[in-house]
Amino acid sequence: MPTSEIRYVAKVDLKKPADQQNVLHNRWHPDVPSIGRIAQGEVVKVQCLDWTGGQIGNNDSADDIRNIQYVQPLVEQPWGFTGVFDKKNGGGFLDEFYPNAAKAIWDLEGIFCSSHHIPGVRFPGLIHPSILGCAPSQEILEEWNRREGGLISACAYMDQDVAKPPEPRNVHAGDASAEIKEKVGKEGARTIPGRPEHSGNYDIKNLSRGSKVFLPIHVAGAKFSVGDLHFSQGDGEISFCGAIEIAGEITLKFNVIKNGMKELAMKPPIYIPGPVEPHFGPGRYIYFEGFSVDENGKQHYLDATVAYKQTVSRCIEYKVVRI
Amino acid sequence: MPTSEIRYVAKVDLKKPADQQNVLHNRWHPDVPSIGRIAQGEVVKVQCLDWTGGQIGNNDSADDIRNIQYVQPLVEQPWGFTGVFDKKNGGGFLDEFYPNAAKAIWDLEGIFCSSHHIPGVRFPGLIHPSILGCAPSQEILEEWNRREGGLISACAYMDQDVAKPPEPRNVHAGDASAEIKEKVGKEGARTIPGRPEHSGNYDIKNLSRGSKVFLPIHVAGAKFSVGDLHFSQGDGEISFCGAIEIAGEITLKFNVIKNGMKELAMKPPIYIPGPVEPHFGPGRYIYFEGFSVDENGKQHYLDATVAYKQTVSRCIEYKVVRI
Amino acid sequence: MPTSEIRYVAKVDLKKPADQQNVLHNRWHPDVPSIGRIAQGEVVKVQCLDWTGGQIGNNDSADDIRNIQYVQPLVEQPWGFTGVFDKKNGGGFLDEFYPNAAKAIWDLEGIFCSSHHIPGVRFPGLIHPSILGCAPSQEILEEWNRREGGLISACAYMDQDVAKPPEPRNVHAGDASAEIKEKVGKEGARTIPGRPEHSGNYDIKNLSRGSKVFLPIHVAGAKFSVGDLHFSQGDGEISFCGAIEIAGEITLKFNVIKNGMKELAMKPPIYIPGPVEPHFGPGRYIYFEGFSVDENGKQHYLDATVAYKQTVSRCIEYKVVRI
Amino acid sequence: MPTSEIRYVAKVDLKKPADQQNVLHNRWHPDVPSIGRIAQGEVVKVQCLDWTGGQIGNNDSADDIRNIQYVQPLVEQPWGFTGVFDKKNGGGFLDEFYPNAAKAIWDLEGIFCSSHHIPGVRFPGLIHPSILGCAPSQEILEEWNRREGGLISACAYMDQDVAKPPEPRNVHAGDASAEIKEKVGKEGARTIPGRPEHSGNYDIKNLSRGSKVFLPIHVAGAKFSVGDLHFSQGDGEISFCGAIEIAGEITLKFNVIKNGMKELAMKPPIYIPGPVEPHFGPGRYIYFEGFSVDENGKQHYLDATVAYKQTVSRCIEYKVVRI
Repeated sequence: MPTSEIRYVAKVDLKKPADQQNVLHNRWHPDVPSIGRIAQGEVVKVQCLDWTGGQIGNNDSADDIRNIQYVQPLVEQPWGFTGVFDKKNGGGFLDEFYPNAAKAIWDLEGIFCSSHHIPGVRFPGLIHPSILGCAPSQEILEEWNRREGGLISACAYMDQDVAKPPEPRNVHAGDASAEIKEKVGKEGARTIPGRPEHSGNYDIKNLSRGSKVFLPIHVAGAKFSVGDLHFSQGDGEISFCGAIEIAGEITLKFNVIKNGMKELAMKPPIYIPGPVEPHFGPGRYIYFEGFSVDENGKQHYLDATVAYKQTVSRCIEYKVVRI
Repeated sequence: MPTSEIRYVAKVDLKKPADQQNVLHNRWHPDVPSIGRIAQGEVVKVQCLDWTGGQIGNNDSADDIRNIQYVQPLVEQPWGFTGVFDKKNGGGFLDEFYPNAAKAIWDLEGIFCSSHHIPGVRFPGLIHPSILGCAPSQEILEEWNRREGGLISACAYMDQDVAKPPEPRNVHAGDASAEIKEKVGKEGARTIPGRPEHSGNYDIKNLSRGSKVFLPIHVAGAKFSVGDLHFSQGDGEISFCGAIEIAGEITLKFNVIKNGMKELAMKPPIYIPGPVEPHFGPGRYIYFEGFSVDENGKQHYLDATVAYKQTVSRCIEYKVVRI
Repeated sequence: MPTSEIRYVAKVDLKKPADQQNVLHNRWHPDVPSIGRIAQGEVVKVQCLDWTGGQIGNNDSADDIRNIQYVQPLVEQPWGFTGVFDKKNGGGFLDEFYPNAAKAIWDLEGIFCSSHHIPGVRFPGLIHPSILGCAPSQEILEEWNRREGGLISACAYMDQDVAKPPEPRNVHAGDASAEIKEKVGKEGARTIPGRPEHSGNYDIKNLSRGSKVFLPIHVAGAKFSVGDLHFSQGDGEISFCGAIEIAGEITLKFNVIKNGMKELAMKPPIYIPGPVEPHFGPGRYIYFEGFSVDENGKQHYLDATVAYKQTVSRCIEYKVVRI
Repeated sequence: MPTSEIRYVAKVDLKKPADQQNVLHNRWHPDVPSIGRIAQGEVVKVQCLDWTGGQIGNNDSADDIRNIQYVQPLVEQPWGFTGVFDKKNGGGFLDEFYPNAAKAIWDLEGIFCSSHHIPGVRFPGLIHPSILGCAPSQEILEEWNRREGGLISACAYMDQDVAKPPEPRNVHAGDASAEIKEKVGKEGARTIPGRPEHSGNYDIKNLSRGSKVFLPIHVAGAKFSVGDLHFSQGDGEISFCGAIEIAGEITLKFNVIKNGMKELAMKPPIYIPGPVEPHFGPGRYIYFEGFSVDENGKQHYLDATVAYKQTVSRCIEYKVVRI
């Protein structure tokens, strides 16, 4: 009964660099140590850095976007950012059309945000975390490395990072010992993609206040993590950090459901949004149809990726004309 | 001022076969004759057969789905149908997993529908047309044939109809002369796919009562057509006729906007839904995340088609367990 | 299973006067004869005149509003009307401020309506019946006559019709015999007010497509009636016919619930709206607070009627300035 | 540009009694001193005690409700309360039926609340302030005293406090001098009722995050106040503190509109809710119709107060059966 204050299970310090934050990890690995225990039915708070670990400055330069390292979440500041990575630095969905790094700083005013980089736009956000999940078991981790290694090999000829293999540098593993940290670096899965076995970077824009998520548990103690908070996100994360990225904190309630996977007939995680959302009615939407015809007039066969790119391009053109 | 009855610009006769319906066409071609004129700002009604031209029976056999011919829309009956084509007869999005033909008949009760083929399901529809557009110019038609011909050539080795070339048999071209009908058959574009230049089979489930569509005009007189009415459709038309297909009629108001393409900064059509929809609040939704990992455990690179297939498969499994 | 056409249990003829329509009644009385039987779970259609029985003309004169007789509903025409009665002819909620008769004709275009009497206004309706209920028993009818007679006596000194007693003239009682018709005229309750025992003129604007109503049954066979269709209504029926009144037809499904009153812990009827409505989001609303201070600056004590009048007056002033 | 922290213009101290809080006032009077200045377009925060000034304990006793004094708003604690006053201590809308004091403590968990006093109920709140307004001018204050004094005189024979006259005891007037405080006590308007000239206790449940209010200004400097925060409220404030009363803080943005009253054609305040709300769709509502027939079977004439009481009583009975 939360008649006293809700306790924090994780706090961050905005003035410390990421590698001195003992609650922070940027690899998925069963050996990343837990930072605390949560009782059945308990409500707790978690503080999160923004997903870069605080590398983005509230200024007009896009240099920090180009040179970013991949660290995940922690702490409070009254603004957020969106960014497009340079095609050479990870890129994103539309990097063929927009290859250069860019960023926008968003000022947060209650439920609204606006940006002096994008004059004329002001809208209410739908704040949500975009990474959460329980630690993989050793078997699942190996399957991930096999699976993503296969894609990297198959695409070796391409001028593109199609997936990230384990990387021993820039590893954060909470307050793990040096030995475990080294192991996590060698084997640990990167936190960029979502994965069906545990969720990870799922990026569902509607998972805001009052939502429920059902997650598989793979290791003793579950080892739940959360981070990568967004003030708002569109339909899909189009650019690499296409959402409005923020540091913040999140209140969560936990329940373990025995035999839940079987009872819920569940394979990957199930997400159920809460009852609270900005809403404007169906008549305030505008639809651009995506077709499997690319920007060079080439016909593809039922290709949702091509179609989605066309739709997004039409939206961008439409916005540019109107703002 | 519609204080008198709204006139029909097209009526169908449910008892006649498709090739005796003089308002029916199943090819896009600039020479398909108009059946009437509509004044600026006029409101009119159009009757439509279901998209098969009335070939589906209200019975428990799936034979009619397997043997269907590709004809489009006309007239009234108090039921609709969904169907899955046999993989050998056109198939659809999930034909790898569900290769056989199947159908369900839906009984329509006011705004609700239910099916004795799928016991336990009853829901309100969001009725909409799913094909509309103005006739292509001769240049656009040639571009379509070039573009889709290219895909057919490139995929000649595949065991799949990736696109349909012009086909001189089973042509409907309204009340065209024999000569024009022959030309339409030789050159006319099939009505199955949507195309960015004019819309066509766009399948947006929300374009229901009170919606607006902005369409490019390519020939003198515009030559607007509409058909393929749905009682309801999901997020995407998963099976070949994944919507609940119905015969019916539609009331439309027309306005020509001079220089509209330029003023609206418009390339493909723009669709704006109306203010009326069944709605249940955000908390009644359930999300299954799609990942670029296919059913064989193979990793793909940002592949929305693979991801969508996974999501749809999770939805089907979830439903099957619960019904 | 409605795979064949849904049958009509009541049809009207727009060309006949109200007293020649054998499905029409304008008194509530247990002896008004039934016009047919409906099976458990059956879906049927009912045609309704507009509530005046067709006395309003589609023209610019307000004479027909002033002289109207109180007849209830039947049949189809493509327009509706709103009206304000003269204070001397029944008046309505704001007749102190707007004492003269007035009307507006509304042209119906699909889900939208507009009126050349109120330029600049066009909106989607939420069509609904506003009178329905089962016949009262003789005991309930007597209670109504006692109760409303008491109010009439108590307000005899006022310059206002506070309720209508039974009235032997202008009685419609379906195809009742002359003898029964006379009895109905002498004893029957007027159909203007709603009454908690059976619903009657309930005027809930949201009871549109897909709604459910639970009604008490007081006589053998239930003797259900429906009418007074509205294309749209505001929050309350402010003027006497403040809704957009139409003739039309309605599709209904019936189920009898044995012991339903007890199981539902139900006293007066329970109304559950359907899932379909025009919606615009909470941010498109505007609120004017009503206070218990009247237009003369006099303070009242928690008087919702005074407060509602003030709010409605503010809305009217706001609209007048803006249109 | 709120890229630095938003400043507080008012802070409260939960451990001090109300009369030591220098930002607190419980009378409307032009001479209550301002506590600070706000720039045009500035965003600020205001802390508020709950409306009783912290007199309600988080326990199971209803004694504090019976003996409460009328103080308004300030500070933070993780729970709220609803209460019914004793009929002898101010009572409320349904005190004829529920004359005794009662309270429920609500535990707040994120957007949801639940109460061990009302098992089985958990729902998302729609947090809002329910008192706000600018100070009255001396003329307006005198009109209020005249108007409400008139009601008190007229109802002198009744066993009911129909309004509260100025009261020199228990006055809070911020950090006013003793002399001004005495004047405020003698003349100041009580903060219980809303008043059309400036808003005051308006209790609109939808005025939550992202809302806008347009308020008349009557004195130099405007002298804006806000308080009486609610975690949630129903349709009307049925019992005296029928909302879930909380202490909290609120973020506000201010703009002065020159000639705004004229430009907006505005008499009393105008309230426009924000775009964010819990929503469940129209089909999750249930309607009980209110009729002008009271619980003794007496008919009234178009009496919204009687009708509202009946509706609320039906809701309470329905809930009691179901919980």
